[in-house]
Amino acid sequence: MSLPDGYPAPVAQLAEALRLLPGVGRRGAERLTLALLEWEPDDLRSFGTLLQELPDKVGLCPECGMLAEKGEKCAFCRDPRRDDSLLCVVETTAQVHSVEASGHYRGRYHILGGRLSPRTAELDGGLNLDSLLRRAASGTVKEIILALSPDVEGRATACFLSEQLSGLPVKLSRPALGLPAGSNLSYADAATVSAALSGRIPMTEP
Amino acid sequence: MSLPDGYPAPVAQLAEALRLLPGVGRRGAERLTLALLEWEPDDLRSFGTLLQELPDKVGLCPECGMLAEKGEKCAFCRDPRRDDSLLCVVETTAQVHSVEASGHYRGRYHILGGRLSPRTAELDGGLNLDSLLRRAASGTVKEIILALSPDVEGRATACFLSEQLSGLPVKLSRPALGLPAGSNLSYADAATVSAALSGRIPMTEP
Repeated sequence: MSLPDGYPAPVAQLAEALRLLPGVGRRGAERLTLALLEWEPDDLRSFGTLLQELPDKVGLCPECGMLAEKGEKCAFCRDPRRDDSLLCVVETTAQVHSVEASGHYRGRYHILGGRLSPRTAELDGGLNLDSLLRRAASGTVKEIILALSPDVEGRATACFLSEQLSGLPVKLSRPALGLPAGSNLSYADAATVSAALSGRIPMTEP
Repeated sequence: MSLPDGYPAPVAQLAEALRLLPGVGRRGAERLTLALLEWEPDDLRSFGTLLQELPDKVGLCPECGMLAEKGEKCAFCRDPRRDDSLLCVVETTAQVHSVEASGHYRGRYHILGGRLSPRTAELDGGLNLDSLLRRAASGTVKEIILALSPDVEGRATACFLSEQLSGLPVKLSRPALGLPAGSNLSYADAATVSAALSGRIPMTEP
Protein backbone atom coordinates (compact mmCIF):
# COMPACT_ATOMS: atom_id res chain seq x y z
CA MET A 1 0.00 0.00 0.00
CA SER A 2 1.50 3.29 -1.13
CA LEU A 3 -1.35 5.35 0.26
CA PRO A 4 -3.02 5.37 3.69
CA ASP A 5 -6.53 3.92 3.87
CA GLY A 6 -9.41 6.09 2.80
CA TYR A 7 -8.36 7.05 -0.72
CA PRO A 8 -10.67 5.97 -3.55
CA ALA A 9 -9.50 2.93 -5.54
CA PRO A 10 -8.39 4.74 -8.76
CA VAL A 11 -6.19 7.05 -6.68
CA ALA A 12 -4.64 4.15 -4.76
CA GLN A 13 -3.97 2.27 -8.03
CA LEU A 14 -2.24 5.32 -9.51
CA ALA A 15 -0.02 5.60 -6.43
CA GLU A 16 0.92 1.92 -6.77
CA ALA A 17 1.90 2.45 -10.42
CA LEU A 18 3.98 5.54 -9.60
CA ARG A 19 5.78 3.67 -6.86
CA LEU A 20 7.27 1.34 -9.48
CA LEU A 21 9.32 4.26 -10.82
CA PRO A 22 12.96 4.52 -9.70
CA GLY A 23 13.52 6.70 -6.64
CA VAL A 24 9.80 6.96 -5.86
CA GLY A 25 8.95 5.64 -2.40
CA ARG A 26 5.72 5.55 -0.46
CA ARG A 27 5.69 9.26 0.39
CA GLY A 28 6.91 10.22 -3.07
CA ALA A 29 4.13 8.23 -4.71
CA GLU A 30 1.58 9.95 -2.46
CA ARG A 31 2.98 13.38 -3.31
CA LEU A 32 3.00 12.69 -7.07
CA THR A 33 -0.53 11.26 -6.92
CA LEU A 34 -1.90 14.31 -5.11
CA ALA A 35 -0.10 16.55 -7.61
CA LEU A 36 -1.61 14.66 -10.55
CA LEU A 37 -5.07 15.07 -9.01
CA GLU A 38 -4.57 18.83 -9.34
CA TRP A 39 -3.88 18.61 -13.08
CA GLU A 40 -6.46 19.66 -15.64
CA PRO A 41 -8.45 16.65 -16.96
CA ASP A 42 -7.18 17.31 -20.50
CA ASP A 43 -3.55 17.33 -19.35
CA LEU A 44 -4.08 14.04 -17.51
CA ARG A 45 -5.64 12.49 -20.60
CA SER A 46 -2.75 13.64 -22.84
CA PHE A 47 -0.21 12.30 -20.34
CA GLY A 48 -2.09 8.99 -20.25
CA THR A 49 -2.15 8.83 -24.04
CA LEU A 50 1.60 9.46 -24.23
CA LEU A 51 2.22 6.47 -21.95
CA GLN A 52 -0.22 4.24 -23.80
CA GLU A 53 1.25 5.03 -27.19
CA LEU A 54 4.88 4.74 -26.10
CA PRO A 55 5.30 1.02 -26.91
CA ASP A 56 3.77 1.51 -30.37
CA LYS A 57 5.61 4.68 -31.27
CA VAL A 58 9.11 4.10 -29.91
CA GLY A 59 11.49 1.31 -30.80
CA LEU A 60 15.19 0.77 -31.32
CA CYS A 61 17.09 2.01 -34.36
CA PRO A 62 17.75 -1.02 -36.61
CA GLU A 63 21.23 0.33 -37.35
CA CYS A 64 22.67 1.22 -33.93
CA GLY A 65 20.15 0.18 -31.26
CA MET A 66 19.43 3.75 -30.07
CA LEU A 67 15.87 4.82 -29.19
CA ALA A 68 14.03 5.88 -32.33
CA GLU A 69 10.54 6.29 -33.69
CA LYS A 70 9.24 2.81 -34.45
CA GLY A 71 10.60 1.42 -37.72
CA GLU A 72 12.84 4.40 -38.38
CA LYS A 73 16.51 5.15 -37.94
CA CYS A 74 17.50 7.24 -34.92
CA ALA A 75 18.49 10.91 -35.05
CA PHE A 76 22.21 10.05 -34.83
CA CYS A 77 22.15 7.59 -37.75
CA ARG A 78 20.09 9.98 -39.86
CA ASP A 79 22.37 13.00 -39.28
CA PRO A 80 24.36 13.45 -42.55
CA ARG A 81 27.03 15.59 -40.87
CA ARG A 82 28.35 12.78 -38.70
CA ASP A 83 31.58 10.93 -39.45
CA ASP A 84 30.76 7.44 -40.76
CA SER A 85 34.32 6.21 -40.25
CA LEU A 86 34.16 6.50 -36.46
CA LEU A 87 31.95 4.31 -34.26
CA CYS A 88 31.51 4.64 -30.50
CA VAL A 89 30.20 1.53 -28.72
CA VAL A 90 28.31 2.24 -25.47
CA GLU A 91 26.27 0.07 -23.10
CA THR A 92 22.99 1.98 -22.83
CA THR A 93 21.01 4.60 -24.73
CA ALA A 94 21.55 7.04 -21.85
CA GLN A 95 25.34 6.79 -22.28
CA VAL A 96 25.02 8.20 -25.79
CA HIS A 97 24.05 11.47 -24.13
CA SER A 98 27.02 11.31 -21.76
CA VAL A 99 29.27 11.17 -24.83
CA GLU A 100 27.26 13.84 -26.65
CA ALA A 101 27.47 16.17 -23.64
CA SER A 102 31.28 16.13 -23.98
CA GLY A 103 30.81 18.04 -27.25
CA HIS A 104 33.87 16.32 -28.72
CA TYR A 105 32.42 13.43 -30.64
CA ARG A 106 30.93 13.65 -34.12
CA GLY A 107 31.03 10.00 -35.20
CA ARG A 108 28.27 7.38 -35.12
CA TYR A 109 27.13 5.27 -32.17
CA HIS A 110 26.42 1.65 -31.45
CA ILE A 111 24.38 0.71 -28.37
CA LEU A 112 25.09 -2.77 -27.01
CA GLY A 113 22.04 -2.78 -24.77
CA GLY A 114 23.85 -4.84 -22.12
CA ARG A 115 27.18 -6.18 -20.99
CA LEU A 116 28.90 -9.47 -20.54
CA SER A 117 28.89 -10.94 -17.05
CA PRO A 118 32.49 -12.08 -16.32
CA ARG A 119 31.31 -14.40 -13.56
CA THR A 120 29.05 -16.51 -15.72
CA ALA A 121 30.83 -15.56 -18.97
CA GLU A 122 27.33 -15.62 -20.35
CA LEU A 123 26.25 -13.33 -23.09
CA ASP A 124 23.12 -11.29 -22.59
CA GLY A 125 20.74 -12.61 -25.25
CA GLY A 126 19.74 -9.06 -26.13
CA LEU A 127 23.28 -7.87 -26.82
CA ASN A 128 23.21 -5.92 -30.08
CA LEU A 129 26.23 -7.78 -31.51
CA ASP A 130 25.37 -9.06 -34.99
CA SER A 131 24.69 -5.55 -36.19
CA LEU A 132 28.03 -4.37 -34.73
CA LEU A 133 29.98 -7.11 -36.55
CA ARG A 134 28.17 -6.26 -39.78
CA ARG A 135 28.98 -2.56 -39.41
CA ALA A 136 32.63 -3.32 -38.53
CA ALA A 137 32.99 -5.53 -41.63
CA SER A 138 31.29 -3.04 -43.96
CA GLY A 139 34.51 -1.18 -44.78
CA THR A 140 33.00 2.23 -43.94
CA VAL A 141 34.03 2.19 -40.29
CA LYS A 142 37.76 2.80 -39.74
CA GLU A 143 37.88 3.04 -35.94
CA ILE A 144 35.71 1.65 -33.17
CA ILE A 145 35.91 3.25 -29.71
CA LEU A 146 34.88 0.67 -27.11
CA ALA A 147 33.49 3.24 -24.64
CA LEU A 148 32.42 0.74 -22.01
CA SER A 149 32.46 1.63 -18.32
CA PRO A 150 35.87 0.88 -16.77
CA ASP A 151 34.48 -1.58 -14.19
CA VAL A 152 34.67 -5.38 -14.13
CA GLU A 153 31.71 -6.09 -16.42
CA GLY A 154 32.66 -3.26 -18.78
CA ARG A 155 36.24 -4.50 -19.15
CA ALA A 156 35.08 -8.06 -19.70
CA THR A 157 32.69 -6.84 -22.38
CA ALA A 158 35.41 -4.74 -24.05
CA CYS A 159 37.78 -7.76 -24.08
CA PHE A 160 35.05 -9.93 -25.56
CA LEU A 161 34.25 -7.36 -28.23
CA SER A 162 37.90 -6.88 -29.19
CA GLU A 163 38.18 -10.67 -29.67
CA GLN A 164 35.03 -10.71 -31.80
CA LEU A 165 36.25 -7.77 -33.87
CA SER A 166 39.84 -8.99 -34.33
CA GLY A 167 40.69 -9.73 -37.95
CA LEU A 168 38.28 -7.08 -39.20
CA PRO A 169 39.76 -4.01 -40.91
CA VAL A 170 39.05 -1.60 -38.03
CA LYS A 171 41.24 0.08 -35.43
CA LEU A 172 40.00 -0.51 -31.87
CA SER A 173 40.43 2.02 -29.06
CA ARG A 174 39.09 2.78 -25.60
CA PRO A 175 38.70 6.06 -23.64
CA ALA A 176 41.69 7.08 -21.49
CA LEU A 177 41.67 6.23 -17.80
CA GLY A 178 42.83 8.97 -15.44
CA LEU A 179 41.91 11.61 -12.92
CA PRO A 180 38.46 13.12 -13.44
CA ALA A 181 38.61 16.76 -14.56
CA GLY A 182 38.22 19.16 -11.63
CA SER A 183 38.86 16.41 -9.07
CA ASN A 184 41.22 16.49 -6.11
CA LEU A 185 44.16 14.07 -6.14
CA SER A 186 43.62 13.48 -2.40
CA TYR A 187 40.31 11.78 -3.03
CA ALA A 188 41.25 9.70 -6.08
CA ASP A 189 41.29 5.94 -5.52
CA ALA A 190 44.51 3.95 -5.97
CA ALA A 191 43.46 2.28 -9.24
CA THR A 192 42.65 5.65 -10.81
CA VAL A 193 45.93 7.24 -9.71
CA SER A 194 47.80 4.19 -10.97
CA ALA A 195 46.07 4.42 -14.36
CA ALA A 196 46.66 8.18 -14.53
CA LEU A 197 50.39 7.77 -13.78
CA SER A 198 51.02 4.94 -16.21
CA GLY A 199 49.08 6.84 -18.88
CA ARG A 200 50.95 10.13 -18.19
CA ILE A 201 51.51 12.48 -21.13
CA PRO A 202 54.25 15.08 -21.76
CA MET A 203 53.58 18.57 -20.37
CA THR A 204 53.76 20.15 -23.82
CA GLU A 205 50.43 18.60 -24.79
CA PRO A 206 47.40 20.50 -23.53
CA MET B 1 13.85 20.78 -23.12
CA SER B 2 14.00 18.06 -20.50
CA LEU B 3 15.98 15.70 -22.69
CA PRO B 4 19.14 16.20 -24.76
CA ASP B 5 18.69 16.28 -28.54
CA GLY B 6 18.42 13.02 -30.37
CA TYR B 7 15.52 11.36 -28.54
CA PRO B 8 12.46 10.54 -30.62
CA ALA B 9 9.52 12.94 -30.22
CA PRO B 10 7.21 10.69 -28.12
CA VAL B 11 10.02 10.15 -25.62
CA ALA B 12 10.79 13.87 -25.42
CA GLN B 13 7.08 14.67 -24.91
CA LEU B 14 6.84 12.15 -22.09
CA ALA B 15 9.87 13.72 -20.38
CA GLU B 16 8.24 17.15 -20.66
CA ALA B 17 5.06 15.84 -19.02
CA LEU B 18 6.98 14.15 -16.20
CA ARG B 19 8.89 17.34 -15.54
CA LEU B 20 5.64 19.04 -14.53
CA LEU B 21 5.49 16.79 -11.46
CA PRO B 22 6.71 18.25 -8.15
CA GLY B 23 10.36 17.56 -7.36
CA VAL B 24 11.10 16.25 -10.85
CA GLY B 25 13.83 18.26 -12.59
CA ARG B 26 15.55 17.80 -15.93
CA ARG B 27 17.70 14.84 -14.86
CA GLY B 28 14.83 13.28 -12.89
CA ALA B 29 12.51 13.48 -15.89
CA GLU B 30 15.19 11.81 -18.05
CA ARG B 31 15.66 9.03 -15.50
CA LEU B 32 11.91 8.40 -15.14
CA THR B 33 11.45 8.43 -18.92
CA LEU B 34 14.22 5.87 -19.48
CA ALA B 35 12.73 3.73 -16.68
CA LEU B 36 9.27 3.87 -18.27
CA LEU B 37 10.78 2.78 -21.60
CA GLU B 38 11.85 -0.44 -19.85
CA TRP B 39 8.29 -1.22 -18.71
CA GLU B 40 6.24 -3.94 -20.39
CA PRO B 41 3.89 -2.46 -23.03
CA ASP B 42 0.85 -3.75 -21.10
CA ASP B 43 1.99 -2.06 -17.89
CA LEU B 44 2.51 1.21 -19.73
CA ARG B 45 -0.97 0.96 -21.24
CA SER B 46 -2.58 0.27 -17.84
CA PHE B 47 -0.70 3.18 -16.30
CA GLY B 48 -1.84 5.42 -19.15
CA THR B 49 -5.43 4.28 -18.69
CA LEU B 50 -5.31 5.05 -14.95
CA LEU B 51 -4.25 8.62 -15.71
CA GLN B 52 -6.82 9.06 -18.45
CA GLU B 53 -9.67 7.79 -16.31
CA LEU B 54 -8.70 9.71 -13.20
CA PRO B 55 -10.78 12.84 -13.93
CA ASP B 56 -13.86 10.72 -14.68
CA LYS B 57 -13.52 8.35 -11.76
CA VAL B 58 -12.40 10.59 -8.92
CA GLY B 59 -14.18 13.62 -7.49
CA LEU B 60 -14.76 15.31 -4.16
CA CYS B 61 -17.10 13.94 -1.50
CA PRO B 62 -20.27 16.09 -1.56
CA GLU B 63 -20.39 15.97 2.26
CA CYS B 64 -16.83 16.83 3.35
CA GLY B 65 -14.77 17.65 0.24
CA MET B 66 -12.43 14.66 0.59
CA LEU B 67 -11.31 12.69 -2.48
CA ALA B 68 -13.92 10.08 -3.35
CA GLU B 69 -15.11 7.99 -6.26
CA LYS B 70 -17.09 10.30 -8.55
CA GLY B 71 -20.62 10.96 -7.25
CA GLU B 72 -20.13 8.99 -4.03
CA LYS B 73 -19.37 9.83 -0.44
CA CYS B 74 -15.77 9.34 0.72
CA ALA B 75 -14.55 6.47 2.89
CA PHE B 76 -14.56 8.66 6.02
CA CYS B 77 -18.16 9.87 5.60
CA ARG B 78 -19.34 6.32 4.81
CA ASP B 79 -17.67 4.73 7.86
CA PRO B 80 -20.51 4.02 10.38
CA ARG B 81 -18.09 3.66 13.31
CA ARG B 82 -17.01 7.30 13.26
CA ASP B 83 -18.28 9.86 15.76
CA ASP B 84 -20.76 12.18 14.03
CA SER B 85 -20.63 14.73 16.84
CA LEU B 86 -16.98 15.65 16.20
CA LEU B 87 -15.78 17.44 13.07
CA CYS B 88 -12.15 18.19 12.18
CA VAL B 89 -11.64 21.01 9.64
CA VAL B 90 -8.42 20.74 7.60
CA GLU B 91 -7.04 22.64 4.63
CA THR B 92 -6.21 19.85 2.18
CA THR B 93 -7.11 16.22 1.51
CA ALA B 94 -3.53 15.21 2.38
CA GLN B 95 -3.92 16.71 5.88
CA VAL B 96 -6.70 14.21 6.61
CA HIS B 97 -4.02 11.54 6.53
CA SER B 98 -1.77 13.54 8.87
CA VAL B 99 -4.61 13.50 11.40
CA GLU B 100 -5.43 9.83 10.70
CA ALA B 101 -1.79 8.86 11.21
CA SER B 102 -1.99 10.18 14.78
CA GLY B 103 -4.39 7.30 15.49
CA HIS B 104 -6.28 9.46 17.99
CA TYR B 105 -9.14 10.83 15.98
CA ARG B 106 -12.36 8.96 15.22
CA GLY B 107 -14.65 11.83 14.26
CA ARG B 108 -15.59 13.12 10.81
CA TYR B 109 -13.63 15.50 8.58
CA HIS B 110 -14.28 18.62 6.60
CA ILE B 111 -11.80 19.68 3.90
CA LEU B 112 -11.76 23.41 3.18
CA GLY B 113 -9.73 23.04 0.00
CA GLY B 114 -7.95 26.35 0.57
CA ARG B 115 -7.24 29.11 3.04
CA LEU B 116 -7.96 32.76 3.47
CA SER B 117 -5.22 35.15 2.42
CA PRO B 118 -4.84 37.70 5.26
CA ARG B 119 -3.10 40.17 2.95
CA THR B 120 -5.95 40.52 0.51
CA ALA B 121 -8.57 39.29 3.00
CA GLU B 122 -10.01 37.59 -0.04
CA LEU B 123 -11.79 34.32 0.14
CA ASP B 124 -10.71 31.55 -2.18
CA GLY B 125 -13.76 31.00 -4.39
CA GLY B 126 -13.33 27.26 -4.04
CA LEU B 127 -13.44 27.28 -0.21
CA ASN B 128 -15.79 24.49 0.87
CA LEU B 129 -17.68 26.78 3.29
CA ASP B 130 -21.43 26.45 2.60
CA SER B 131 -21.31 22.76 3.32
CA LEU B 132 -19.43 23.41 6.59
CA LEU B 133 -22.04 25.95 7.76
CA ARG B 134 -24.80 23.51 6.88
CA ARG B 135 -23.12 20.69 8.82
CA ALA B 136 -22.47 22.96 11.81
CA ALA B 137 -26.14 24.01 11.90
CA SER B 138 -27.50 20.49 11.53
CA GLY B 139 -27.47 19.78 15.28
CA THR B 140 -25.53 16.53 14.86
CA VAL B 141 -22.10 18.12 15.24
CA LYS B 142 -21.26 19.15 18.81
CA GLU B 143 -17.62 20.20 18.42
CA ILE B 144 -15.60 21.51 15.49
CA ILE B 145 -11.79 21.31 15.68
CA LEU B 146 -10.30 24.00 13.44
CA ALA B 147 -7.13 22.05 12.62
CA LEU B 148 -5.59 24.68 10.37
CA SER B 149 -1.81 25.08 10.11
CA PRO B 150 -0.54 27.50 12.79
CA ASP B 151 0.94 29.95 10.28
CA VAL B 152 -0.34 33.36 9.18
CA GLU B 153 -2.81 32.15 6.56
CA GLY B 154 -3.98 29.28 8.75
CA ARG B 155 -4.66 31.55 11.73
CA ALA B 156 -6.49 34.07 9.54
CA THR B 157 -8.63 31.26 8.16
CA ALA B 158 -9.35 29.89 11.64
CA CYS B 159 -10.39 33.39 12.83
CA PHE B 160 -12.62 33.81 9.80
CA LEU B 161 -14.24 30.41 10.33
CA SER B 162 -14.85 31.02 14.03
CA GLU B 163 -16.63 34.27 13.11
CA GLN B 164 -18.73 32.47 10.51
CA LEU B 165 -19.60 29.69 12.95
CA SER B 166 -20.35 31.92 15.95
CA GLY B 167 -23.96 31.72 17.06
CA LEU B 168 -24.26 28.12 15.92
CA PRO B 169 -24.72 25.43 18.59
CA VAL B 170 -21.19 24.01 18.29
CA LYS B 171 -18.09 24.19 20.48
CA LEU B 172 -15.01 25.39 18.55
CA SER B 173 -11.47 24.24 19.36
CA ARG B 174 -8.01 24.20 17.82
CA PRO B 175 -5.02 21.81 18.24
CA ALA B 176 -2.55 22.73 21.02
CA LEU B 177 0.61 24.63 20.12
CA GLY B 178 3.82 23.44 21.76
CA LEU B 179 7.10 21.60 21.38
CA PRO B 180 7.01 18.84 18.75
CA ALA B 181 7.28 15.35 20.28
CA GLY B 182 10.86 14.04 20.25
CA SER B 183 12.30 17.48 19.52
CA ASN B 184 15.16 19.24 21.28
CA LEU B 185 14.36 22.43 23.21
CA SER B 186 17.63 23.95 21.93
CA TYR B 187 16.33 24.01 18.38
CA ALA B 188 12.78 25.19 19.03
CA ASP B 189 11.95 28.65 17.73
CA ALA B 190 10.94 31.44 20.12
CA ALA B 191 7.26 31.48 19.11
CA THR B 192 6.95 27.74 19.72
CA VAL B 193 8.66 27.91 23.13
CA SER B 194 6.45 30.86 24.06
CA ALA B 195 3.31 28.94 23.07
CA ALA B 196 4.50 25.82 24.90
CA LEU B 197 5.18 27.78 28.10
CA SER B 198 1.94 29.71 28.12
CA GLY B 199 0.05 26.52 27.39
CA ARG B 200 1.88 24.53 30.09
CA ILE B 201 0.03 21.75 31.89
CA PRO B 202 0.45 20.29 35.41
CA MET B 203 2.97 17.40 35.71
CA THR B 204 0.28 15.03 36.93
CA GLU B 205 -1.27 14.87 33.46
CA PRO B 206 0.47 12.51 31.03
